[in-house]
Amino acid sequence: MRYYPESLARLLTELRKLPGVGEKTAQRLAFHMLREPAEDIRRLGKTIAEAHDHLTQCGVCGSFTDKTQNPCRICESPNRDRSSICVVEKPDDIAVFERMGSYRGLYHVLGGVLSALNHVRPDDLRIPELLSRVEKEQTAEVILALNPSVEGNATVTYLSRQLEPLPARVTQIAYGIPIGSELDYVDEVTLNRALESRSEVP
Amino acid sequence: MRYYPESLARLLTELRKLPGVGEKTAQRLAFHMLREPAEDIRRLGKTIAEAHDHLTQCGVCGSFTDKTQNPCRICESPNRDRSSICVVEKPDDIAVFERMGSYRGLYHVLGGVLSALNHVRPDDLRIPELLSRVEKEQTAEVILALNPSVEGNATVTYLSRQLEPLPARVTQIAYGIPIGSELDYVDEVTLNRALESRSEVP
Repeated sequence: MRYYPESLARLLTELRKLPGVGEKTAQRLAFHMLREPAEDIRRLGKTIAEAHDHLTQCGVCGSFTDKTQNPCRICESPNRDRSSICVVEKPDDIAVFERMGSYRGLYHVLGGVLSALNHVRPDDLRIPELLSRVEKEQTAEVILALNPSVEGNATVTYLSRQLEPLPARVTQIAYGIPIGSELDYVDEVTLNRALESRSEVP
Repeated sequence: MRYYPESLARLLTELRKLPGVGEKTAQRLAFHMLREPAEDIRRLGKTIAEAHDHLTQCGVCGSFTDKTQNPCRICESPNRDRSSICVVEKPDDIAVFERMGSYRGLYHVLGGVLSALNHVRPDDLRIPELLSRVEKEQTAEVILALNPSVEGNATVTYLSRQLEPLPARVTQIAYGIPIGSELDYVDEVTLNRALESRSEVP
């Protein structure tokens, strides 16, 4: 990068730290920024710099929320079905559900999954918070929506055991063949899972 | 986006203005930023916000350079071959040549290509600057390295006519089959160009 002017090299170095941004993407982004009006780019930079200042973790579900609104908009909404809680790994996963739009219940962010390899133990996750929430709010159903990894599965097992003494029904989302794909293109693990989770044709 | 906290929605809106960043990428970037230490993200934002403050156009080649170093590092370098000038559309293209590393001459950024459709006329580009540069510095060779579009080709024709009265040799980079690709996968226009530009086997 020695042929770049110093300030440009600095910008490229910062951009390359972003996920999925390699040398070429960083360069495309940087040159785009330099072509756009200075004012627009200053606003972009300011918004990024201030991201942490305005946002915090929701005290109830653990997702991100504005510092001026805690608990978050979903936890506080009178329009949500308070009888079910969908448990996800990261705040990002909530966005996926909300984009889909058909789920009207509440959420709970674990902050990861159990992992011996990465030394993530039950008390590193927001599991105690989940248990006390389910107990206090007399939640009817806890829907586990973790990623189908080895760690995700272990976490599902652990959570369902922990939730057993409580009256809540514990379910998990279905894993199987994605809609619109063809069997030819599905990997063996997914196919096996789809076979194991087969159900009666109604 | 109504389910996002306000500050997060604002960040997503700004990120989506970047080239190649759609809803999902913006979301991935934003959540990454919120997971990283506040200090790192503040530095990223500051670097972006200040991009325009530190950089300016090189008075000679038209690429970007630090405000404290004008003409730019390449134009000023004693190690470059001053007898040839490579003409490109945008500063980004210089980075491509420099990454390759085998070109040791100078550059000239046109700032675009001639286009009747987009109302780009010769004096909208840095063509007068190129002509006076080639004349004053008695450049031996002008290498045209524009993108092989209709407008690029028209610009090549225009430039070679304008440069004709000057003693400089005017060349253009070769367009044809990319190395490593197979004929099967090459489009007809490229193949036709490769055929037209055929040369004797040495």
